[in-house]
Amino acid sequence: MPLGEFDLIARYFARPARRALLGVGDDCALLAPAAGMQLATSCDMLVEGRHFLSTVAPDRLGHKALAVNLSDLAACGAAPLAFTLALSMPRAEEAWLDGFSRGLFALADAHGCELVGGDTTQGPLCICISVFGEVPAAQALLRSGARAGDDLYVSGTLGDARLALEAFRGTLDLTGDALTTARAAMELPQPRVALGIALRGVATSAIDVSDGLLGDLAHLLRLSGVGARLEVDALPRSATLAAQAPAVQRECTLAGGDDYELLFTAPPGRADAVQAAAVAGGVAATRIGRVEAEAGLRLFDAEGRALPNTWGSFDHFRP
Amino acid sequence: MPLGEFDLIARYFARPARRALLGVGDDCALLAPAAGMQLATSCDMLVEGRHFLSTVAPDRLGHKALAVNLSDLAACGAAPLAFTLALSMPRAEEAWLDGFSRGLFALADAHGCELVGGDTTQGPLCICISVFGEVPAAQALLRSGARAGDDLYVSGTLGDARLALEAFRGTLDLTGDALTTARAAMELPQPRVALGIALRGVATSAIDVSDGLLGDLAHLLRLSGVGARLEVDALPRSATLAAQAPAVQRECTLAGGDDYELLFTAPPGRADAVQAAAVAGGVAATRIGRVEAEAGLRLFDAEGRALPNTWGSFDHFRP
Repeated sequence: MPLGEFDLIARYFARPARRALLGVGDDCALLAPAAGMQLATSCDMLVEGRHFLSTVAPDRLGHKALAVNLSDLAACGAAPLAFTLALSMPRAEEAWLDGFSRGLFALADAHGCELVGGDTTQGPLCICISVFGEVPAAQALLRSGARAGDDLYVSGTLGDARLALEAFRGTLDLTGDALTTARAAMELPQPRVALGIALRGVATSAIDVSDGLLGDLAHLLRLSGVGARLEVDALPRSATLAAQAPAVQRECTLAGGDDYELLFTAPPGRADAVQAAAVAGGVAATRIGRVEAEAGLRLFDAEGRALPNTWGSFDHFRP
Repeated sequence: MPLGEFDLIARYFARPARRALLGVGDDCALLAPAAGMQLATSCDMLVEGRHFLSTVAPDRLGHKALAVNLSDLAACGAAPLAFTLALSMPRAEEAWLDGFSRGLFALADAHGCELVGGDTTQGPLCICISVFGEVPAAQALLRSGARAGDDLYVSGTLGDARLALEAFRGTLDLTGDALTTARAAMELPQPRVALGIALRGVATSAIDVSDGLLGDLAHLLRLSGVGARLEVDALPRSATLAAQAPAVQRECTLAGGDDYELLFTAPPGRADAVQAAAVAGGVAATRIGRVEAEAGLRLFDAEGRALPNTWGSFDHFRP
């Protein structure tokens, strides 16, 4: 007998609520942010063929579907509380559901983020997660807070996910450990939740890098009403990416996509606090430029030469 | 030039936040439930061909996508606050987006529910909305509160949406005003938000009827640990449905689906309060049976004869 909708929820997704007042199984979930806390929420939809390849292991897909949402909480400095999962899939395949739910809950448990509700339906493979976190009143990190003179930082390294994508597309050769490393960056992004929390009161603005550094930086600068100088050769990259041709390195770090690192700003006087936050967050924070009053983005190489900005940002509705 | 992702958000979906602390445009939205209030949340995903026909007018689809979510808030007695929209669509068609957003915002505005975030992507037509409401602490209507001796009620009328679906499937003839009425029930369901709020402190349990009365009643009874006696011929139906063959009437009222009425219970002593809530909610509330201690559901016709339960409930993963 095929697995029914309510059986599959019971078997793979219903777990007792621990922190939420009411979890899976009623018309709504009930959440109560602690006194003085605001509720942060974000949602992301992942569609097969667009956000992930059909060949991805289901446990990695479960991880990534939640990770991209936790990354949005991280960019606000919010601590994860709960999430809902809406899942459309062609068939209720037990092996797939087992892997997907394992990857999903492993990451959820690591961040104390519990599943409180959702929806399952038959259709094309499509995953929509809404995540909920809490942040002390007036302490959320916003995209709009960057000020001229602030330093510009990015966490971790950039470009490995794009490198893996290009390897799968066949536009470059990548084998062995290099492919394994790049593929893990694409399929198992680590949301910078601890860093985001540690940056409360330190960073003046933040955004998560999901569409490529240049595109996401442009959002931050526009919403802050400022411009910036970006040191292109200072962008942090893995040894795997650093072994590629210079043009590949620039494409992947500047316009890679799927990085899920935090791009943020802080006054120069808070440089030590930024590094302390990075230690608390368990990830490097690299200074990559400076915010300037003049609108627009200016790129420079290691020798201080201006570079033309010829890289595009990812847009789902433009070729 | 095709409409880009950020242009389409700006043109059709970005509106200034009025009640939320932070709306569309940052990594997260920020919500702050009022003091003493809990946050209720629910999400529903609608997939083309599964939840709606490709021929539906986009404004009606916008209405319905939000309505089915507001119906979940109604079933909890929660007052709407905000929602997020994740939208996957094959192309960014301006005429479609214009209609969809008009229908969506007309219903949102009618309920003071503002769009605070979301996601857009290219893919199969798939709409995922998460809705947020607030309800006073410990006053949420749950599925688990029904007690033996309670009366069983349903709001409005049942079965018209299913009648329309059968007309579109060609299994019965429906024309003129009858088709228009049934089609409106299917495409423009009215979430019973005001009724849900008015039932706080009156109803002992509630659920919204989305998969068919029998299926949703079974959930409520199971979670409450009780059974019920259901008066099949007392189920409220429109004049349109009442003009159909008796077997069609029973199928549509008992196992119709897409009704979005509230099914709820209240002690017999609160019958007047139920009717006052119905007046406040602008919709009829009809007594359709009684909760009993014995598990299971027993069906009776108008003459008091027991009927076998041969109707199935909708399951997305069973044929």
